[in-house]
Amino acid sequence: MRMQRIIRMLLTAFLVIFVSGSAVAKDSLPSWNEGPAKQAIVEFVAAVTDDKGKDYVEPGDRIAVFDNDGTMWVESPMYTQALFAFDRVKKLAPKHPEWKTTQPFKGVLEGDMKAVGASGMKGLMAIIMATHSGMSAAEFDKDVSDWLGINKQPKFKRLYTECIYQPQLELLKYLRANGFKTFIVSGGGIAFMRTFSEKAYGIPTEQVVGSSVVAEFQDKDGKPALVRQPKIDFINDKAGKPVGIYQHIGRRPILAFGNSDSDMQMIEYTIAGKGRRLGLFVHHTDEEREYAYDRKSHVGTLDKALDRAAAEGWIIVDMKKDWKQIFPK
Amino acid sequence: MRMQRIIRMLLTAFLVIFVSGSAVAKDSLPSWNEGPAKQAIVEFVAAVTDDKGKDYVEPGDRIAVFDNDGTMWVESPMYTQALFAFDRVKKLAPKHPEWKTTQPFKGVLEGDMKAVGASGMKGLMAIIMATHSGMSAAEFDKDVSDWLGINKQPKFKRLYTECIYQPQLELLKYLRANGFKTFIVSGGGIAFMRTFSEKAYGIPTEQVVGSSVVAEFQDKDGKPALVRQPKIDFINDKAGKPVGIYQHIGRRPILAFGNSDSDMQMIEYTIAGKGRRLGLFVHHTDEEREYAYDRKSHVGTLDKALDRAAAEGWIIVDMKKDWKQIFPK
Repeated sequence: MRMQRIIRMLLTAFLVIFVSGSAVAKDSLPSWNEGPAKQAIVEFVAAVTDDKGKDYVEPGDRIAVFDNDGTMWVESPMYTQALFAFDRVKKLAPKHPEWKTTQPFKGVLEGDMKAVGASGMKGLMAIIMATHSGMSAAEFDKDVSDWLGINKQPKFKRLYTECIYQPQLELLKYLRANGFKTFIVSGGGIAFMRTFSEKAYGIPTEQVVGSSVVAEFQDKDGKPALVRQPKIDFINDKAGKPVGIYQHIGRRPILAFGNSDSDMQMIEYTIAGKGRRLGLFVHHTDEEREYAYDRKSHVGTLDKALDRAAAEGWIIVDMKKDWKQIFPK
Repeated sequence: MRMQRIIRMLLTAFLVIFVSGSAVAKDSLPSWNEGPAKQAIVEFVAAVTDDKGKDYVEPGDRIAVFDNDGTMWVESPMYTQALFAFDRVKKLAPKHPEWKTTQPFKGVLEGDMKAVGASGMKGLMAIIMATHSGMSAAEFDKDVSDWLGINKQPKFKRLYTECIYQPQLELLKYLRANGFKTFIVSGGGIAFMRTFSEKAYGIPTEQVVGSSVVAEFQDKDGKPALVRQPKIDFINDKAGKPVGIYQHIGRRPILAFGNSDSDMQMIEYTIAGKGRRLGLFVHHTDEEREYAYDRKSHVGTLDKALDRAAAEGWIIVDMKKDWKQIFPK
């Protein structure tokens, strides 16, 4: 009978969709090797999404936060935003003849990174203020986008926005498919990161939390504009991260992912909430495919967190062992 | 033939769904009377969602921002948060014997609002600092929720969170159904508003922008907690509103809705962007069903914006004429 044939066809179509659907679900983290890290993630997501289980979390409260440098993209041999700032110092130097004789600008212009390093946090702030303020928000966005559009990471010879971690992209998608809202919570500049967060990570600007300079609403060339001021508004790092989460998100995450001691407080705050929680750190162990560094590194120092991880129940993701693939193809 | 009958049935089902879908769309603002305000809204939404039209806006950029006091809920005869603060002064008074002789606390304790008013912005800040800090974020949330759960608006004898405007609730839903992301951008306290924004407006905490006090991440009773400090972090009012939008949302809204001169800069900033934009003000004209006030009011002063509206293309929503119903039933 025709009707029966149609029903059979529909059932077959349904089965094909269903089975391939399951296959996709099983495979939502294909760049993660089987192991304790992947297992912890999958079990956690299963637990908080099981509406009959004791660990169930309402979708609105499924907040997941990710550090950026070293957690989502390459931070070695130097933070991308610092390289951007150094290039801007060079670009702006003709307007600042005094920089030729003033540290840390002199060091940047002469490529003397030791001198720049010796200027410490004060020197770094001077560079950030000189290069990240004095322009409108729109002008700054354009400067960043232009720079990211042409400069390449020295080891991998690809754009910085292509030096993002494939396993983390899969994790973001997997979490979102399970009702999570995903955020970046980074010590990096909020405006800097927002220029690429949507395209690179699928994270819209309003879900990016970071450090900021003061902005003022002014008339600029007869049009109202936001003008970036040479004054720090907020440093979203270490104990600042839980504060940034409070001010921007307004609820405690249930999953937090970092890679350095600067992420410890964010993960402590996450874990201290009621119910099931998950805290993870990327451990850079892959000199060949990426970089290997931890306790003594000048970027993304991972020391105390490594010592405390086992006792605290934090998951250490071993890049070499746990990640099948590092970058998108 | 059977096949033809099945196709006819499917077509009928499709038509029923399609037609009833249209009917719903026509009726998504039932508490708005037909008139220029409703027409401006509906035409704007149609224009920015028509992917073949010149005014099309990608869903991610459909950002709509709403002031809270006087735009989303009643602000007369006094801002709800100020009443909460006054009640907290009374509650905390036994621990502060000096308040009996110190303004503006003395005025609050004696119900002498003239004295409180005479203390000006400095006095108000002293009250806010004394009542909104010194506790953990969780404790503050509980205090606010408890207070909102029992105190009623004097004229309407309903909870403050029930003195919200039905036409605005419909507008929020209508915008979200058309791919907009809706935000509160208010001079009110960000933590105060976040306790009810989700339940009252369907707006999650992370889409609320407001004024804030500094928070610190501390150990409190052996657990990591955010502790509210007696120090202003940010005043999200007047020229602060575009700044709050920049820091929290990171993109320029295409629709902004306010009700007072304090919302002018937010609406100027919104309108100054490229492409089609919409700026609106609620004008409180309904003494009978709500309140009537504008130029000389001590809450929600609407004066300069009223003068400039016609020239700037801002829509003035006349509460009495434009709103069929004020509160949810």
